[in-house]
Amino acid sequence: MTKVFLKKQIQNRVLQGHPWIFGNEVAEIKGEVNAGEIVDVYTHKGFFLGRGYINPQSQILVRLLTRDKSEEINPEFFYHRLLKCWQYRQKLGYVENCRLVYGEADDLPALVIDKFNDYFVIQTLALGMERWKDAIVDAINRIFSPKGIYERNDVPVRELEGMTQQKGFLSAPFDTNLIINENGLKFHVDVVNGQKTGYFLDQQDNRREIKHIVKDADVMEAFCYTGTFSCHAGFYGAKSVLGLDISETAVHTARRNAELNNLQDICQFQAVNAFDQLKQWTREEKKFDVVILDPPAFTKSRENIQKAVTGYKEINLRGMKLLKPGGFLVTASCTNLVSPDLFLQTIDAAARDAKKRLRQVTFQTQAQDHPILRNIENTTYLKFLIVEVS
Amino acid sequence: MTKVFLKKQIQNRVLQGHPWIFGNEVAEIKGEVNAGEIVDVYTHKGFFLGRGYINPQSQILVRLLTRDKSEEINPEFFYHRLLKCWQYRQKLGYVENCRLVYGEADDLPALVIDKFNDYFVIQTLALGMERWKDAIVDAINRIFSPKGIYERNDVPVRELEGMTQQKGFLSAPFDTNLIINENGLKFHVDVVNGQKTGYFLDQQDNRREIKHIVKDADVMEAFCYTGTFSCHAGFYGAKSVLGLDISETAVHTARRNAELNNLQDICQFQAVNAFDQLKQWTREEKKFDVVILDPPAFTKSRENIQKAVTGYKEINLRGMKLLKPGGFLVTASCTNLVSPDLFLQTIDAAARDAKKRLRQVTFQTQAQDHPILRNIENTTYLKFLIVEVS
Repeated sequence: MTKVFLKKQIQNRVLQGHPWIFGNEVAEIKGEVNAGEIVDVYTHKGFFLGRGYINPQSQILVRLLTRDKSEEINPEFFYHRLLKCWQYRQKLGYVENCRLVYGEADDLPALVIDKFNDYFVIQTLALGMERWKDAIVDAINRIFSPKGIYERNDVPVRELEGMTQQKGFLSAPFDTNLIINENGLKFHVDVVNGQKTGYFLDQQDNRREIKHIVKDADVMEAFCYTGTFSCHAGFYGAKSVLGLDISETAVHTARRNAELNNLQDICQFQAVNAFDQLKQWTREEKKFDVVILDPPAFTKSRENIQKAVTGYKEINLRGMKLLKPGGFLVTASCTNLVSPDLFLQTIDAAARDAKKRLRQVTFQTQAQDHPILRNIENTTYLKFLIVEVS
Repeated sequence: MTKVFLKKQIQNRVLQGHPWIFGNEVAEIKGEVNAGEIVDVYTHKGFFLGRGYINPQSQILVRLLTRDKSEEINPEFFYHRLLKCWQYRQKLGYVENCRLVYGEADDLPALVIDKFNDYFVIQTLALGMERWKDAIVDAINRIFSPKGIYERNDVPVRELEGMTQQKGFLSAPFDTNLIINENGLKFHVDVVNGQKTGYFLDQQDNRREIKHIVKDADVMEAFCYTGTFSCHAGFYGAKSVLGLDISETAVHTARRNAELNNLQDICQFQAVNAFDQLKQWTREEKKFDVVILDPPAFTKSRENIQKAVTGYKEINLRGMKLLKPGGFLVTASCTNLVSPDLFLQTIDAAARDAKKRLRQVTFQTQAQDHPILRNIENTTYLKFLIVEVS
């Protein structure tokens, strides 16, 4: 086995649990370096730190899979890891749908598996994980006897690892237009063409949180995508729901989701630019009881955090102005580049500019099936806030 | 009406919504100053800021009740405010029990009212609020036709306002040993001798959060007080629950609570010093599946924050060591002197010392009937964290 020896000064981060080793942290490599293969990692003094896969083409040279020297990386390893992931999700109460594997947070770096009842969507985002795809598929088959497995590796990050983007079946072909159950509702999941793995499971716990505040309310959701929050609002007793999204395709699916739940008379959707629409409604002094904002990440790069903050501030300020006194703002941010503190500061700044007072109802993170590692920064990527605005 | 004019430089805080005016922030007072009476507050330029009650004997000279110049402070004012408070709690889904009024967060500074179904416990913690006690009692009678109202003004902070401590009936006498329903369980509430208002409603939402993780588990709760978390653990399917509290009285009530829910075979309680017991069990390498820590505030003064942090770190470190691998730590802190960030940092430090890795399941605040004012610091006083420990 190839041995990677770290420089003296950077061991603490890795010792404290971070599974990534960057190229510039390595003092010496003994043995061959073959992209995607398993290597052992040691301190400069020769103390075993862990075992993982290497890729000299990636900025992250090694990602650790285990800290246990006696644990071999083989198909059995992946079977046991996936079983452990499933037991954890079951422990937390997930039955049908969940993020079964969430990469680093499950000691399976760069692997994502979403479970949609009997169907599984997987992403292998690093070369060293890609190599074990067959073992991972076998493990899924062994544990779940699934109806289908699909690969959504159409993700640019794979190119940084020297891989191509690709998607397709990892099982016999199946009808990829699924219908899942969530919180008592049903939703269409387009495994092939939906964003990411086809559905945002990370808001599944948060969608329940609007239950009480939407009752008898006129609700508006901007950036509604396929209308999952909007349909929840209708289901929980909203008087009317208006969802906006710039994508015609998303709005089309949102309408189908409303119909699927017999909410087509309550939930209406419009394909419009939400920024423009909010601006226009502010001028018209239109008012709602509840405004929901679940925008896409306004930035993907650290350089543009300020741009993202400006975007969040603008839409939240407009959202606040569109509320009746005592109305509720439901607002989220899904980028790990904006920390929970920075997000709250941005909302508070918007409130000052809008001359509104906020009373916090709830402040949460991504759903519990996307665990947050306390010893790794920025794994709290999703922020979800409900405030009363007056 | 007496007029209080503020100094130029401190208006922003008050303009941005803070209801307190300190003595050293006042430039000039025009008119008589009678402790407990209503005054108007202006900027140095004579711009109306709000109306509130004054007490020259208190560090907080004025606490604002309204920002609306046309709103008179009279019995009708209190009736409308209480009605608004009740509507807000109902909106959030509270039916039987709730903190009906939470002081500043409800624009009723220094007033606390807990609703235990048909019974009400009130605290008037400032002289200016004490003066309106009859109006407040009348409002409760008018809105709820309650079975009883009790005053728990046996609180030292009243002495800073020049008032005595006192407790007693504000209605016809009633049996003050109540039984309330919470999350499908029943609990004894001792309105006269229980801590604070007799029961900690601020954890009522959080108690539900242990539902999944305690199933089939051996659970230990330190600082269990009257055993409410412990009983929830039993109710949600724990194999065994062991609750510790230093108070014989608390443990006695905890046992009665277990019996009330027919959980006496699952839930055991011991009157011991939790610090000592945790130490001893660490030496004996005793292990549990779930450890719950809901300690009292380790400090009440800003000078002793470090002492509190040390206390939180110690018990959490011990709690982590008493867990089987993959067990869950449920941990809370109820002092506003320890911010959510500082609390998380303390838990993370304990994990480093215990050489444990934490995966966050949930991080919450006090129940939603204790609203958090986003524009006032430190109103997030309760921190409630669940982590998987391995």
